[in-house]
Amino acid sequence: MSWKLIESAKTRTYVLVADPGEDALEAIGALARDEKLSAAQITAVGAFARATVGWFDRDAKDYRKIPIEEQCEVLSLVGDIAHGEDGPTVHVHAVLGLRSGEVRGGHLLEGEVWPTLEVVVRESPAELQKTDHPEIGLALIDLARSSA
Amino acid sequence: MSWKLIESAKTRTYVLVADPGEDALEAIGALARDEKLSAAQITAVGAFARATVGWFDRDAKDYRKIPIEEQCEVLSLVGDIAHGEDGPTVHVHAVLGLRSGEVRGGHLLEGEVWPTLEVVVRESPAELQKTDHPEIGLALIDLARSSA
Amino acid sequence: MSWKLIESAKTRTYVLVADPGEDALEAIGALARDEKLSAAQITAVGAFARATVGWFDRDAKDYRKIPIEEQCEVLSLVGDIAHGEDGPTVHVHAVLGLRSGEVRGGHLLEGEVWPTLEVVVRESPAELQKTDHPEIGLALIDLARSSA
Repeated sequence: MSWKLIESAKTRTYVLVADPGEDALEAIGALARDEKLSAAQITAVGAFARATVGWFDRDAKDYRKIPIEEQCEVLSLVGDIAHGEDGPTVHVHAVLGLRSGEVRGGHLLEGEVWPTLEVVVRESPAELQKTDHPEIGLALIDLARSSA
Repeated sequence: MSWKLIESAKTRTYVLVADPGEDALEAIGALARDEKLSAAQITAVGAFARATVGWFDRDAKDYRKIPIEEQCEVLSLVGDIAHGEDGPTVHVHAVLGLRSGEVRGGHLLEGEVWPTLEVVVRESPAELQKTDHPEIGLALIDLARSSA
Repeated sequence: MSWKLIESAKTRTYVLVADPGEDALEAIGALARDEKLSAAQITAVGAFARATVGWFDRDAKDYRKIPIEEQCEVLSLVGDIAHGEDGPTVHVHAVLGLRSGEVRGGHLLEGEVWPTLEVVVRESPAELQKTDHPEIGLALIDLARSSA
């Protein structure tokens, strides 16, 4: 994984290029921790050798895992970074294109990059704070506790 | 729905968090009207309890409605805000992930948020003007009438 | 195709509106060349009368072509512009919504716009450099050779 700050001033913008074999979430999470990002927007394209996405099951209060065991185009990776209990939290959803042109997707749980993933991370000068919601089973962004 | 201005200067960026049960378009539209947005870019992730998307039928000059009557991940919500006849016009397309990992999508007509929808709205210091095209059945952004 | 610079300062943002019958990649490529863009992020929505997307075949080291011979909503067009051997290189992935609400997608090879495609191009004050990788069959962004 390599990354570069391509814009500073009040808004920092990063381009992150993940290497073959790297996990997409670990790469983005490493950037978020290194740079102490607490409010950012993520978009990416590239491809995965395999991935696992999730669909949130309201009854189980957890993600149902959906494995994608084949080379797929990352048609979009859209999401954000906020500040959770244990530091920066990366939340991205993936849309994946199969050989047939059919599409699968979900909340990204893991994605093994091949050959590249080009990620643009736009930070904003704010802190988005997440609050745990045990009744739902998720931590959600809580703007009342966030600062601009 | 809650929202916060997280960046000002020439470009204003908002994070909008929609609440359970809210309609995504109404929430984004309310922000657009309150803040008089006339040129903005939208990206979002989250989930819907149900939604209706549309496919534009050239012959009927209207959207064919496609109901999605199940909990689905909002894999992407991409679009823009421009200035229409009656004020700010929100134009977003949705990609929705089902329990099976299969994907549906279209022009977003309604989306009932559950448990959250995290929307980033980046305004630009411009006014994008829409012009009605009765021969098509849509209002389209008209840059000749827009100002930067 | 028409386009307008809607923000300058260090980061330039363009809105490009492609006309009926135009090819999406040619339109974005023309803007990239005219404005000498070497680091930019692309998002778009709109619709195509037809398109061809690709899935990268690791063995063939080339894209397998997937034709979409019908009117489809452009649910997302996400990607970037970098500097390649022959000038600006546009890299976008498309997610396309069919009449049934089913979705197809891949690396965008061609897309005939109808009735519109609204593209937001955010430049950053950097140069992203691509390097050919004959062993893969693609040119990839090489941050070691890029400048911020």
